[in-house]
This record gives sequence, C-alpha cells and structure tokens, in this order.
Amino acid sequence: MHAPDRLLATYRVRCDAIDAEARAQAIALEQSVELPLAAVRDARVREQVVGRVQAIRRCAEHEHEHEHEVDIALAVETVGNEAGQLMNMLFGNSSLHEEVTLVDVELPVSLAAAFGGPRFGIDGLRALTGVRDRALSCTALKPQGLPPDALADLARAFAESGIDVIKDDHGLADQPFAPFADRVRACQRAIDDANARQGRNALYAPSVTGDLDAMRRQIALARELGVRVVLVAPMIAGVSNVAHLARESGVALLAHPALAGAARIAPPLLIGKLFRLLGADATIFPNAGGRFGYSQAQCLAIAAAARAPWHAMRSTLPVPAGGMSVERVREILGRFGKDTMLLIGGSLLEAHDALRARCRAFVEAVAEGSITERAQHAS
Amino acid sequence: MHAPDRLLATYRVRCDAIDAEARAQAIALEQSVELPLAAVRDARVREQVVGRVQAIRRCAEHEHEHEHEVDIALAVETVGNEAGQLMNMLFGNSSLHEEVTLVDVELPVSLAAAFGGPRFGIDGLRALTGVRDRALSCTALKPQGLPPDALADLARAFAESGIDVIKDDHGLADQPFAPFADRVRACQRAIDDANARQGRNALYAPSVTGDLDAMRRQIALARELGVRVVLVAPMIAGVSNVAHLARESGVALLAHPALAGAARIAPPLLIGKLFRLLGADATIFPNAGGRFGYSQAQCLAIAAAARAPWHAMRSTLPVPAGGMSVERVREILGRFGKDTMLLIGGSLLEAHDALRARCRAFVEAVAEGSITERAQHAS
Repeated sequence: MHAPDRLLATYRVRCDAIDAEARAQAIALEQSVELPLAAVRDARVREQVVGRVQAIRRCAEHEHEHEHEVDIALAVETVGNEAGQLMNMLFGNSSLHEEVTLVDVELPVSLAAAFGGPRFGIDGLRALTGVRDRALSCTALKPQGLPPDALADLARAFAESGIDVIKDDHGLADQPFAPFADRVRACQRAIDDANARQGRNALYAPSVTGDLDAMRRQIALARELGVRVVLVAPMIAGVSNVAHLARESGVALLAHPALAGAARIAPPLLIGKLFRLLGADATIFPNAGGRFGYSQAQCLAIAAAARAPWHAMRSTLPVPAGGMSVERVREILGRFGKDTMLLIGGSLLEAHDALRARCRAFVEAVAEGSITERAQHAS
Repeated sequence: MHAPDRLLATYRVRCDAIDAEARAQAIALEQSVELPLAAVRDARVREQVVGRVQAIRRCAEHEHEHEHEVDIALAVETVGNEAGQLMNMLFGNSSLHEEVTLVDVELPVSLAAAFGGPRFGIDGLRALTGVRDRALSCTALKPQGLPPDALADLARAFAESGIDVIKDDHGLADQPFAPFADRVRACQRAIDDANARQGRNALYAPSVTGDLDAMRRQIALARELGVRVVLVAPMIAGVSNVAHLARESGVALLAHPALAGAARIAPPLLIGKLFRLLGADATIFPNAGGRFGYSQAQCLAIAAAARAPWHAMRSTLPVPAGGMSVERVREILGRFGKDTMLLIGGSLLEAHDALRARCRAFVEAVAEGSITERAQHAS
C-alpha cells in the first residue's frame, strides 16, 4: 500500500511508448502544482506536494497508438477533505486532455474516513424496505409533464403491485406541472396508503434538484411527509453538495448517473467508487443490453466497486437500469446477485392497462430470481 | 426562431445515415419523457412535453462513420428555470451515449432572462480594475503547498509589477497549508498595499470551493476583506450553486474550466455560452498552442460565444490561458482583441529572481499589444 499522506490516482493515457514517461510526469505536475518543476523552488512543496509518478504500465494497442496506465501519488493535503477538491485534484485540468482517462483511485484510510461513504448502504436500505433475503425492485414515476395526481396514481399502482422503491423520473425537478411539494405530498400519501393496506414498506424516492439550499428545503419538506430516501444526480448537483447531504440530511441517497457519462472517468470509478465515497446508498447505472452502450464487464465492475470491501465504508446497492425488462430479471439477477435493486421503468408503463399485471410479474420475477440465485450459490 | 416555449439543443451524433432519423428521435425522447412514445398516453405530454426533432444535417465523414447534427426542440417547462435541470434536460442521459456530443443550445428570451448571465461582465470588470482601453493581464498564485505569507509575497510582486488580476491557482482550496481565511487576508492586504502605493486597482481573485454553504462563507469573509472577484469551477462547484452565487454573492465570477473538458460538451458551448448563462463574468480556457489540445478555431469560438450579443445578457470576458508566455502576448491579442484578459502563470514563475522583470514585460506587452491591435483595427 502507498504512503498514508498520498492518494493513488490511475490514468489511462493514449500516447506512444517513447512519450509515456514525459506524459506521466506532466500529469503529475498538472494535478498537483500546475507548474513546471523548475518553477517550484520551495523544498517542502517539491518534496511533499508535487505529484509523483509511481508506475507506468503498457496496455493494449489502440488503433495506431498505445495506451499506458499511469499511477500517480498525489498529496492528501491538497484535497483538504473536500469532495469537489478531490475531483479537482484527481482530474480538474487533466480532464481537458482528450487522451487522458481517469480510471481508478485508492485512498488512504484517513481520507476514506473523512468522507465516510454511505450512511445507510445496502443493509440500511434493506432495513428501510424490510426486504431481507432477495433483490429489491424499483421503478420510476414518469413521464414528466404529468400533474401530481396522475403521478400519485402511478405510485399507488406500483406500490400495490409490490414494488419496493418507487423513484421520481430523474427529469422531475420543481417544474410548474408538478411542483416538488405537491408531487411529493401526493405520491408519498399514495404509497403510505398502499403500505398501510398491505403491511409493506415501499419507499418513495423523490428527485431533489437545484442548489444546496433548494435541495435542503426539499429534503426537509419530504422528511416531514415521511420520505426516507431521495434521488440525486451528483454530477449535476455538485459532488460537494452531495457529500453535504450524506452527512446531514438523514435520508438515504439514490445516485443517478445523469451527466456522469460525459465525464471521461471510467464508470466503475465514478458511478461505483466515487459516488459511494460521496455517500450514495444506492447507485443507478445503465446496464448492458439496454438503451446504453456500457459493456457487461463495465457493469459488473460498477457493481463490484459499489459493494466490495473498501476501508470501513458501507456497501452501496447497485441498481442496473436503462431499458431493462421483466423478461431479463432472471438473467440480471443471475449476474449481479441478490444485493441488487432492479430498476424497470418504461417497459412497465408500456403495458398501459395491464400495468399492474406487468408490475406483479416484475415483483414475482425478482422474488423468484433471488431464490434461483440463492439455490445456485448454495449448490 | 423557434417557439417561445421550446429551447433548441443541437447534438452531433456519430451514426450511419440510415440510422440518423431513429437516433434523433431516441435523443428527443431520452432528453424529455425518457419513455418510448407508445408509453406516453397523456395528450398534453405528447403535445407539449415530448422533445421534437426539428432538423437533421449530415456533417463530414468521420473515419468509417458519418456524423450528423440534430436539432431538438425541448420544452422550456421541463427546465423549471433551474441551472442543474437545464444541464439535465440538455445532456443528462445522453451524456451516457459515447457517440453523442452536445454542441449548441439556443434559448427563448424568457429562459435567458431567468438566468440573467453575467452580473458584471466585461464592462463591470473594466470598471473594477479601471482598465478602459486595453486588454487585461492576469496571473496565478502558485504552487499550492506554499504558506499564506509566501503566496502574499508573490501577490505583492505581481501587483507591484502592474498585473491587473491576481487569481489563486485553481488547486488552492481550504487546505491546512494555506487556509482560506489566512490566505485571503494576507494576499488581499499585499495587493491593497501595492494599489495604495501605486494608485492602481489590481484585483485579487481567491478560489472558492466546497458546497454552497462553504462558498458563501468564503465569499462573505472575502468581501469583508475587500475582495471583489472570486474564482470558481462550475463543473466542480455545481452549476446550480454557481447560478446562485451569480444572483446573490455581489462579487464578480471568474470561471475555471476544471473538469469541464471531461464533459462531451463542445467547449464553445460549455465554457463560452453556458458558463456565461450561469453568470460567469470572465471565463478561463486552455488556449491553442499551450499545454492543452484545443484548436485555434475552438478557442476563437469560445471567445465569440462569451462576447457575442445574446439576448439581453452582458458579455463575458474571455481569458486565454494554459501555458501561455510573454512572447506570445502580441499574437494572442492580435487574435482575440482587447476585450480579453491574458492569463500567464507558470511562465512568469519560472523566471525566479527575475520574476518582477518578467511580470513587467508581461504588463508592457499587454499594453503594447492592445495599442497594436487598436492600430490594426483603425487602419
């Protein structure tokens, strides 16, 4: 393991082998002092603050160029235990280099502890929903543009069909057609009714948006109305705001990857590891074979990053999504296992009048898939 | 011009010609209702909320594939006048598609007015610095790791040499080696001293970081100490927080592109137009021929987007940077004109004991370049 006063960032760089050493040194400077080494006169800064190239590995050929993986040790003191500054030190200026991708990071225990990771995690979400020994099911209220009562009708149908977590579409914010307060009141009440009648603990996860003040106001109101988990998109909301909400909001955080694909940061690192570090209790990602192009290997790596032991942090619940269908539940659970929440949205709503039947099929498939998966693990 | 209830987003899509129509329709759905059209039953939503493909243009061939530019009209009501939600509706999920780039956006006047753009703009920054008829000069306090008094010594040298804006390195946050309060107090005092002796108005622009609470605290303290402009990185700080600061902070905002390069959003749109919309009074970008790979055409397009007439918004001051040198000042000013602030950092600091001489050369080159540029424009 590396020194306790350093974090280790790994970059993938497209360049010829002959240039790799120089490119690695340039990244080490860019992501620390942002100066040529000759311009750094202070001995302490040269010794303790300037980034250090720790390793350079040649990777596969990529068309006419080569790729190299470069490990750079960055000084923990430059991060100041702050989420935005962590992103800045990991990739602020190097993000401007098209040939550089940030692929991994390892933190000393002090930094992991300073952020803290998920406050609820997989166990906390299981406690909130009462779902102990199977995968969880999740769906989304949409399309945006519907008024609160129409969204609440959908929420009721989903809850009565047995779905565990009913989240807002990530497009729902605080728009005039469904203002946050009206929407959350109506949807939470519909789900409360269904829960009361059925003795269940389905959760409603409204989407919180805007600056920190707005998100804080929304969460305070939502908590009063009984909400226990909210949806937030860290790359839009700002990572520092999200870390703040994890520390102080008292609700579980379901992270959405909006705008995260645009970042040339490897998805397992950003959506898995870094969102977990910020405090995401569950993390949604576009699963292979849906509307998005992530590979199966990338998706498994996201789930692994979310759940693997990492310092003292709780695990984050992986949420494969993005064009999934009831027919694929067994396959998806077979791949990801039961510490997973399956999110199916549009494919349920396409059923129109058969919505409830399709939802029940989803719920049953999740239950059966979890049993199959347990049997396989037991055998 | 398009309908007042729609904003027009332009995407560049890599796909075969035969697939272009389907890909455009898919983006229109992804960036609005996030559902197959068949699943949208509500007539109002189909009519007023679903995105509409307005145009598809075939662009240059790109290796084996074609590129198409696609204009999609998105409903203004989905944005709810909120900066994060604007990013979400423009590129939230489509950012997860590697073959899609967001290249432009046009807003109805209502949305432009709701955001408001720069509160100071080029004229406001000229008023603050007292620099009327030439380009402005700017440099950075670095390397991070130095204590406040060392940074203040640098600030004094820069101010006494006649540089107009002295900003923190974007790596400076609130770290133990130079806590925000100590650093800002020391640096602002050094610059105040120089200003008082020389009858100038050099500005110090400290870097504000963290969540909205932290940035607000930092700005309040900085204002008490006499600061009039701050440095902020919108893609790290969160666009909603930045819009909030533009509305309420009372200081001018100098935008930094950290993490912005990672976004598959065309730089002229993101760093020029969108940062301006958020309220950036000046915007730093990596100029061609320095440490970064942006082309000259891209850089001129960034400057044009920052300054061109756009609704009733003030202009944003373009700040070419990223490895510039005193020797290039004349060329850069010739290209960008006098409504420009030149930022040179490392190249000044490499001068070591000749720092002040190099700074004065920078200041003189900016003054002379502005004169040359005026003469050329007059001839």
